[in-house]
Parts: sequence; C-alpha cells; structure tokens
Amino acid sequence: MPELRRGATSNRWVIVAPERGKRPSDFERKGTGLAEQRPENCPFCSGNENMTPPEIYRIPEGAEDWHVRVVPNKFAALQDYESPGREAIEGFFDRMHGLGAHEVVIETPDHAAALPNLPVEQVKRVVDAYIQRLSTLMENPAFRYVLLFKNHGREAGASLLHPHSQIIATPIVPQEVRNSLSIARSYYERKERCLFCDVMLAEIRSGARIVEETDDYVSWTPYASRFPFELVIYPKAHSHDFTTLTEEQRWGLARILKGTLARLLQLVGDVPYNFVLKTTPNPVPRPGKPGYWTTLPYDYHWRIAVMPRLTQVAGFEWGTGFYINPMLPEDAAAALRDVDVS
Amino acid sequence: MPELRRGATSNRWVIVAPERGKRPSDFERKGTGLAEQRPENCPFCSGNENMTPPEIYRIPEGAEDWHVRVVPNKFAALQDYESPGREAIEGFFDRMHGLGAHEVVIETPDHAAALPNLPVEQVKRVVDAYIQRLSTLMENPAFRYVLLFKNHGREAGASLLHPHSQIIATPIVPQEVRNSLSIARSYYERKERCLFCDVMLAEIRSGARIVEETDDYVSWTPYASRFPFELVIYPKAHSHDFTTLTEEQRWGLARILKGTLARLLQLVGDVPYNFVLKTTPNPVPRPGKPGYWTTLPYDYHWRIAVMPRLTQVAGFEWGTGFYINPMLPEDAAAALRDVDVS
Repeated sequence: MPELRRGATSNRWVIVAPERGKRPSDFERKGTGLAEQRPENCPFCSGNENMTPPEIYRIPEGAEDWHVRVVPNKFAALQDYESPGREAIEGFFDRMHGLGAHEVVIETPDHAAALPNLPVEQVKRVVDAYIQRLSTLMENPAFRYVLLFKNHGREAGASLLHPHSQIIATPIVPQEVRNSLSIARSYYERKERCLFCDVMLAEIRSGARIVEETDDYVSWTPYASRFPFELVIYPKAHSHDFTTLTEEQRWGLARILKGTLARLLQLVGDVPYNFVLKTTPNPVPRPGKPGYWTTLPYDYHWRIAVMPRLTQVAGFEWGTGFYINPMLPEDAAAALRDVDVS
Repeated sequence: MPELRRGATSNRWVIVAPERGKRPSDFERKGTGLAEQRPENCPFCSGNENMTPPEIYRIPEGAEDWHVRVVPNKFAALQDYESPGREAIEGFFDRMHGLGAHEVVIETPDHAAALPNLPVEQVKRVVDAYIQRLSTLMENPAFRYVLLFKNHGREAGASLLHPHSQIIATPIVPQEVRNSLSIARSYYERKERCLFCDVMLAEIRSGARIVEETDDYVSWTPYASRFPFELVIYPKAHSHDFTTLTEEQRWGLARILKGTLARLLQLVGDVPYNFVLKTTPNPVPRPGKPGYWTTLPYDYHWRIAVMPRLTQVAGFEWGTGFYINPMLPEDAAAALRDVDVS
C-alpha cells in the first residue's frame, strides 16, 4: 500500500508507492519511445474506454461521444483511506497513509494530437474539466492540496503518448507550496500587497522577459529561470484560487495556454515538458491546528509554470536546489515573442 | 558573463551562464552517448593534458606521471571576480556576479575506468584530492559554500565519459543547505544533540535500511528516499567538516565509497548517478551579518548522498518538491546488502 514518509533532515514528504512496481531488472534501459504507441492499445483512445478504471467525469456530461474524459490513474500514487493514519513509528520514522486521489484528464479522443494544436474550443473544455475536478477535490476536508500538472514526453515523466494531464490530491501541503506561501505572507505583512501581483507589474514594466500579454493574462520567462524557455502564465486580476475563474477568464486561459505551448513547439520542436498549476491549498475547516494551513486571499496568486526539459538536472542542482541555466531568460523571451502563432 | 539571480517568489538562487552556450538549435536531440567518446579526443586522458585549462593540483605533486589531476572547468558556471557585485537592479530583480570557482577532479588517467572498479589506493587519492581542494577553497572568505559532486552518465548531467568529479564554490549558502542547517540547529536547541547522529543511531538500531557498516562509516537507504536505490554514507564519528578527516578516516571513506558504488553497479548495471557531498558552509569571519551563516559544530554532519537516476522526475515533483519513489527503501537496502563485493 502506498505511504507517505517524511525525511527528518529535509522535512520533505515522499510518497513510497511500491505497487507502481519497479524491481531492479525493470530499470534496464528500454529503447521504445512513446511514438511507437498505437491507438488500438491506447487506454485513452475512444473505443477503448473499458481499458481505464470507471470514469469520473466527461465533457459533454452524459453524451455518448466525448471531448474530454477524467478517469482515475490506474497506477495511482495516492488513494482514498478512511483515515490519514498519521503515525510516529519510532524515533524519526513518522509516516501516514498514501491518502489522496490521482486522476487523469484525457484531453482529446485523438491519439496523436498535441494540446497546442487542438482547437481553442477543445482547450477550453480541458480547462473546464480541470476546474470541475479541482473544485470537487478541494471540497474534501482530508485533502490539503490539489496539484494539476501535465507531463509531455517520456523524459518529462509521461508513460503514454495520448495527450493527458494529471491531478493529485495530497493530505499535506507540499513543502514548495508552503515555502512560497510563507514568503508571500511575510511580504504581504510588510507591504499589504500581493507579492505575485507586484512581480507581475515589475515584469510588465520591464518588458524584457514578457512573451505574450492579453487582456486577462500575461506570460513571461522568470527573471531567475531554472531552465531554458521556462515560462509562467499569470492572470492579471488578482486571484489566489484557480477554481473561481469566470467563463471569460477560462476562454482567455485556453487561448494563452494554447498560444504559449504553440510558441514552444514552433521554436524548439516537440520537446518533453511539464506544466504545473500553482493554486491555493484547500480551505481548512479548523484554522490554527498544527500542520494545517489557512490561505488568506493575498498569500497566493494562482499561475501556471511551464518547464521544458532541455537540460539534464545534475548533481549540483540535486545537492543545492541551486540550478544552472545555460540561457538568459531575456534571450528565451525574445525568441518566444518572435514566434508567429497567428 | 555568468551571473547569479534570485527569484523573488522562491528565494532560490540561479546561475545564469549563457557562455555555456545553448541556442534553440542546440537542443535537438542527439543520439550520441558517452560510450562513443575516444581517448584520443578526451581532454582528461594522459597525453592530452594541454587540452585542459592550466592544472590546479596533481597527485603525486610535481611528478611527471599523475594519478589524479585537478583542473578548472573549461565551461565554468562560476568564476573569480574582484567583488561579489551584489546589486538591486530595480524592484525584484536583484543579482550578483557569478563569483566562485568551478574545478574538475580527474579521478584516473584511465579513460574507460569506473570509480568503483579502481583500486582502493586510487580511490583514496581521489579522496585526498577532494580534501586538498575543498580546504583551499574554503579559505577564500568570498566563497560561502563549496560543493563537491559527481555526475556519471549523460542522463545524470555528465558530458564526458572519462571518470571525473566536480567542485563548485558559491558566494552564497544554497537554499537546501540553509534549510537543512536550520532544521538541525533547531533540533540541537531542543535536544542538545546532533540531529544527524540521532538519525544514524535510529537507522543502525532499526537495521532495516542499512546497506553496509564498517568501523568508521555506515551507509543506508534513507527512510524517505526520493529515488530507488538512493543511498547515504555517514561517518560514525560526529564531524560537521569533511576537510578534517584523518588519514585513517580517508582510507575508510575510500573503501565504503568504492564498495557502495560497486554494489550499485553489480545490482542495476552501469546506470547514470549523481553523488553529492554535504558539508559545513565555510567559516564566516563576520558572524551576524545578514546573509551570512555561521555553522556551529552540531548544526551539521558531513555525509555523502548517492542518487541513481533510474526514474524520471516529472511535473508533480517539480511542482511540489514532493517526490514519488516507486521502490520501498527497505527492499532497495536488502538487495544492495545481498550484493557480494568481497
């Protein structure tokens, strides 16, 4: 059974999920890339709906033909339990159940499509599915954070070619999110302004790293980018909670997400990438309880981070959390700005 | 010129080193692996000493034939400057020069050797070279941390096959190290004991994750391992400073380092891996100055972390700092323990 473990010297939680099944012999390098996967064996293709666990959600709801499906991950990293099972085994070894949820959003019935090439109506449906699932999972008081992300390509951690994203609900607020919340909170206490709004304004004013600016959104390459062509997409209107998007803001997000990934695809080709949604931890019914986190609206600003996997993360980065980026973000932004996605 | 940049929302420092030279077109996937590299073109092979920048150190010192050489990294991520150049450009954009040092330790003249297959005398020489260089770099008051690491294999970030490790001196204490120091300091304030010593004792008492125990050292798979076959090597005698090793402790380290990597090699084959030395930040002449860190002897415990690169780090991990490990550390330890390295 999967379990969560906390390292005593790092405060870092780890999911140990041996069911995901690697033995030493499984690690020999296999030559097969995702491009060899065929629709007839693909669990995400239409016609193969019986190859996934029972469906959670589809767009359109109740219709025979679907545009977007949400299903549980067959090899879930986290799953539901009756209790979190928080347990101090002995000394430093504290753990809890692998409590949570792990879902897959199938972005299209088309096996060989790519998110940036889908019609904007279809990307909008994907955004709708994200919001529907996040809203539902955030209602469960046992879940402290809901993470939405996409792995594209084997080197970015994907095991299937068919376009999909994933949602994982965790029973703790991950350390990176906590860290970022605490930086933003102390900024707010000093300035009474949202840190992320201020960073966005500074980026817009500078312009050097801006890739695209629309009515509702702005994308740029972060000043301290860890990776070449790393990108963020921020909503201009302050909001800490992704699930509150209006219909118009959803359309805007579909357009800029499609556009941003299209720029990347045209500029550097079909490279592996990850994107990750950063949004508020779940609202907590019992503020002040240790281990729980209450987000104030100005502690956070939802946003999407896109990380192309063009460089290898090496010993230096693992040892220090201190990355070497071989490309100036200003150069990356200029190249991305110049791509014609009209 | 390389520079250091700090992200306002992450507090994470990044080295931006465009001289290391990637343009968009450089990122197209190349099929060549390191195995194709030939000694005649290898800058680390004997006979090709003129292909490296001027040598910093060799063992034996002054001898014609060398066992170990230390040279500057030709594509240094950090280099020397007259001043750190700390600068608040405008608003959130603060940066400093890419001040530091970046050296390569050539572990053997033998192009196709592997560290675990070298005679223990040679591994001892490598350890000697590490200590000589770290001691020297730690004397420079402009350097706040000296990181020693090894990248083995392209997927672990190595660009050359010839066995080598790297040393990077940085003008700041990296965030991961700071974080770990602060956890250990608050533990010490509560218990008046070294956190790392206590974790080591708990591991020895449990035994479930121990891989090897010698007179001076013990290696195990951490309770909250992020990766399959992740390993740590701790000195049993408390010491926060790697450079204080006695002659006998150096021999002991050579033996357990060789043995640990040999277990990995026999069990999972010649996989890419990183190892990283964690040791105290440099002593600081002006304690209490903001941004500076003074290490007390019980704030830290030097150790080596070995991270095989068998799994892909995916969007979930990047987004949360929260890793999914498909293997129980107890199973990894049992398999590593069973390897015959006699």
